[in-house]
Amino acid sequence: MCCYLLLRRWQAEGKKHSLNNSLEIQREQYKNLSYSIDTLRELKHNFKYDLLYIAEKIHDNESQKALSKIHEYISDLDNTELIRFSRNKAIDSVISYYNQLGRNSGINMLINITDFDSGSIDSSDLAVLLGNLLDNAVTAAAAQPKELFVKLNMAVSGNMLSITLDNSYSGELKPNGNEYPSTKKNHTAIGLKSIAEIAHKYNGDSVFSHDGKAFHASVLLHLQ
Amino acid sequence: MCCYLLLRRWQAEGKKHSLNNSLEIQREQYKNLSYSIDTLRELKHNFKYDLLYIAEKIHDNESQKALSKIHEYISDLDNTELIRFSRNKAIDSVISYYNQLGRNSGINMLINITDFDSGSIDSSDLAVLLGNLLDNAVTAAAAQPKELFVKLNMAVSGNMLSITLDNSYSGELKPNGNEYPSTKKNHTAIGLKSIAEIAHKYNGDSVFSHDGKAFHASVLLHLQ
Repeated sequence: MCCYLLLRRWQAEGKKHSLNNSLEIQREQYKNLSYSIDTLRELKHNFKYDLLYIAEKIHDNESQKALSKIHEYISDLDNTELIRFSRNKAIDSVISYYNQLGRNSGINMLINITDFDSGSIDSSDLAVLLGNLLDNAVTAAAAQPKELFVKLNMAVSGNMLSITLDNSYSGELKPNGNEYPSTKKNHTAIGLKSIAEIAHKYNGDSVFSHDGKAFHASVLLHLQ
Repeated sequence: MCCYLLLRRWQAEGKKHSLNNSLEIQREQYKNLSYSIDTLRELKHNFKYDLLYIAEKIHDNESQKALSKIHEYISDLDNTELIRFSRNKAIDSVISYYNQLGRNSGINMLINITDFDSGSIDSSDLAVLLGNLLDNAVTAAAAQPKELFVKLNMAVSGNMLSITLDNSYSGELKPNGNEYPSTKKNHTAIGLKSIAEIAHKYNGDSVFSHDGKAFHASVLLHLQ
């Protein structure tokens, strides 16, 4: 009887915990989506008013002013262009997003990717893996007082895909084995668990460590 | 001893289930983010080349061609403008996103929101709630052969916020009480569970039903 009650209690708590995790992830999800939608909306808004300005200058026979506005705009677009990091669309979007987010937070984003054929690795798994790594890294680095950096390397060696991610982090972290607590308030470290789970799925491994200056994550995945 | 083993097994399975749910949500998350980044990238790309065309026409003294391109562009921006549905930024972004996604899939999106002060309701909870409702609705409606619609109403009555969402759905659904299976392949119905959990958090309720033509969801939340 005692065993039954314990099992029931475990079951109820397990479900609640699972749902809390899901809600936590979803809150983050909609925050990212909201940021992305706002960027799009602002861009369209600015496009429209700049086009109206250009039209006005053409009307007033001030072609030079129209042209210099156009050139200013193009150079602006080139500077804020979402760089392509990989031919794999799913991971390229994720990296572009966090690269832009990091740059907006004053982080020195150092991204070095050797393009590769992801073969048997599901693109959405890679997107989740990189998203979690980059989300942790950008969040932690942005909170540092100086020398903000995030350094991502992806390379293939034989049939192994190696991903390493370092970010500045001078705070104290007390790991429990390979498990680190979240640096975000009221957060459980779902991100690191997801990373480990995906590495495990592809017969790989994930290792996290830190020294006084940086947090290091490295993930290995079997490509086939 | 048997009890201990059972508990351990439950614990292991619970953790695995929870992680699978988290990964499933995250895959969706990065798909949405990827779609949104692609839209932004395409917009910037097109804008750049249209600006170069306009500059060329100004150079060639073909002001009329430059002006008609500008007007065409502005009318295009107006047509694809992300409509504002609410003063609450968090929910507005989510609704705009799914409204656009639905329209792109040929769904008649009928959205009617009375602006309200969300008061004690956390904006991120509202975003997750609406995101789940709309994600389910748009996904299900898009798969219908004809008369695709999604109809969202939000209104306040007294201190209750009422949200109703209907979508065309002619398929068969076999509910287990108030629990519906996911219409997505390999998906558990985390969405409906999250909706129910948030309703519960605000002393409200959620009810799901369907007839031969549509799926109906209604959620009530206490505003204070």
